[in-house]
Amino acid sequence: MSDDALGFDTVRWMGGAADGWLRLIDQTRLPVDFLEIDCRDAPGVWEAIKMLRVRGAPAIGVAAAYGAVIGARSRGLSEAGAVREALHEAADYLAGSRPTAVNLFWALDRMRAVAQTDASNGLALLEALLAEARAIEALDRATCRAIGRHGAPLIEPGDGVLTHCNAGGLATADYGTALAVIFAAHERGTPLRVFADETRPLLQGARLTAWELARRKIPVTLICDNMAAQVMREGKVQRVVVGADRIAANGDTANKIGTYGVALLAHAHQIPFYVAAPASTFDLSIADGSLIPIEERDPREITHGFGRQTAPDSVQVYNPAFDVTPARLIAGIITERGLISPVDRETIARQLSG
Amino acid sequence: MSDDALGFDTVRWMGGAADGWLRLIDQTRLPVDFLEIDCRDAPGVWEAIKMLRVRGAPAIGVAAAYGAVIGARSRGLSEAGAVREALHEAADYLAGSRPTAVNLFWALDRMRAVAQTDASNGLALLEALLAEARAIEALDRATCRAIGRHGAPLIEPGDGVLTHCNAGGLATADYGTALAVIFAAHERGTPLRVFADETRPLLQGARLTAWELARRKIPVTLICDNMAAQVMREGKVQRVVVGADRIAANGDTANKIGTYGVALLAHAHQIPFYVAAPASTFDLSIADGSLIPIEERDPREITHGFGRQTAPDSVQVYNPAFDVTPARLIAGIITERGLISPVDRETIARQLSG
Repeated sequence: MSDDALGFDTVRWMGGAADGWLRLIDQTRLPVDFLEIDCRDAPGVWEAIKMLRVRGAPAIGVAAAYGAVIGARSRGLSEAGAVREALHEAADYLAGSRPTAVNLFWALDRMRAVAQTDASNGLALLEALLAEARAIEALDRATCRAIGRHGAPLIEPGDGVLTHCNAGGLATADYGTALAVIFAAHERGTPLRVFADETRPLLQGARLTAWELARRKIPVTLICDNMAAQVMREGKVQRVVVGADRIAANGDTANKIGTYGVALLAHAHQIPFYVAAPASTFDLSIADGSLIPIEERDPREITHGFGRQTAPDSVQVYNPAFDVTPARLIAGIITERGLISPVDRETIARQLSG
Repeated sequence: MSDDALGFDTVRWMGGAADGWLRLIDQTRLPVDFLEIDCRDAPGVWEAIKMLRVRGAPAIGVAAAYGAVIGARSRGLSEAGAVREALHEAADYLAGSRPTAVNLFWALDRMRAVAQTDASNGLALLEALLAEARAIEALDRATCRAIGRHGAPLIEPGDGVLTHCNAGGLATADYGTALAVIFAAHERGTPLRVFADETRPLLQGARLTAWELARRKIPVTLICDNMAAQVMREGKVQRVVVGADRIAANGDTANKIGTYGVALLAHAHQIPFYVAAPASTFDLSIADGSLIPIEERDPREITHGFGRQTAPDSVQVYNPAFDVTPARLIAGIITERGLISPVDRETIARQLSG
């Protein structure tokens, strides 16, 4: 299932339903080491999500689906009821790994729905669950390609495109969301240059986005997060494209911390700001972004971020992992169904039900 | 000359004119190690400025003045002419260490002016030069205190004050500029909390500002640069105060990269944004900020922050060390002479000539 141009699988199921396991790229080791790890039990998958070995809203969804398959085996395969019960247990457990990305809950809900279907025995149900996880992965791959197709025409020849964090192949099963737009424009022959925010504290922009773009030979300039305003002021940026972890019914969008600031800076420089995300990123059950839970992470990500202490002992730290960009700052949301613009409740509802 | 409350000297002259040297805190080692280094020749001072062992516009000015004294001894002390010639040579050399901070050139110009005075012999001229360097240091100390006095009333009880980079005692001979405002408000008993941007790539906010505030027992919360917008949105910030490296005649202000972005974010949240700087930071010879040279620094500051590789090999990097905040985004400039507000050419000219 490797992408020819890219040559890696962010997540991959190895073997069959009864004896298989999940193989992941350990993204905390990139770009220096390319290392794959095998998760053979639910705690292994939980830890990989929690520690950001696999990250990015769509990829978390796929990993959790496979993790649920693994967890569903914990009470044996003799009866469908045991598999069903173990599946629900594993889904509850995996849902606690990270709170913000809605794709995690969306994928686990799909797995739960399949668990409710009739099955002649435990193995049959397990195979149905694996088929569903594979379907979630396949859907994500197709979704990313469609996002690329819909987004590519928004990039003009010669554009500088700024992105924040990593919404690339490493954040999805394949090809990405924000980076899908860039990849697809590049494949069409549109000349462009990407400005990649390094994205503190965990540097997904420096470590992952720059790495993915370099592999595809797309021109990229790495900057620190606090240089985005200056690069915009110098006229080097014509578009901003970012991913999303959860989008409310009105279009307010949670994404990696710093995204809201980038949106304000883009607004001040009259640069269109786009979000690229699968339809599964929408959470229509919440009216606006104020209701999206924001994960706070370990202060040591900031104070000991490079393996070296960079702040005084016991300094107080605030480390929110996400922020919410209000819909009014978003020129459009690119999904697999097309471009949502203007970004408002009515347009979103129409597009998602259409 | 230690500040009682603070207990350190950013720069200190040791010994007499003929045999003395410059002692500096090596700020690249903070906050983990408190290490002083001795500079006994002009290249040592140049290296310390270039490598940011001593940094901050006012502190660079003081260090360069003492460096010029050291350099003025290089052709012997037998004749005043030799000292004069060596002084000019050293001043030219030290002026090449960093391009943006105008205080460097201002201090060296003062040293050159003293070198032109009559002197009975080399040692007498050297002693006059040392006296001038000491005067520059003493002026900086007094200036910082005056900035604190003028700025403190701008802080309301309960304010959250965001600052970027380090404009504290470590950026000056003593007490700071932006932090002087905070220190003075704190000393008056005004309760406040500081939000310190860590300030990539070299983390002066995390390493130095958080350290200085902790020493003074002022509440401080460390954040990554890209969290400033979120903290503002949460209503935690009522004022922004930053330092400056050069201010044009119209008030456009060069300061550490990221300052311009912070100013835009403050503007979007209707938070007043103040600059605190000595009058020597103004460069009235330039009409506006577009004429301020911006230093670009080594890409490895971004790709190998703190000894570990965090970006792919040979990725392209943009690393401007400063940006320019337009006067329209600045609510006021706090100097030792008082508050300049509104920030425009006429008000600046009136205040500086008054």
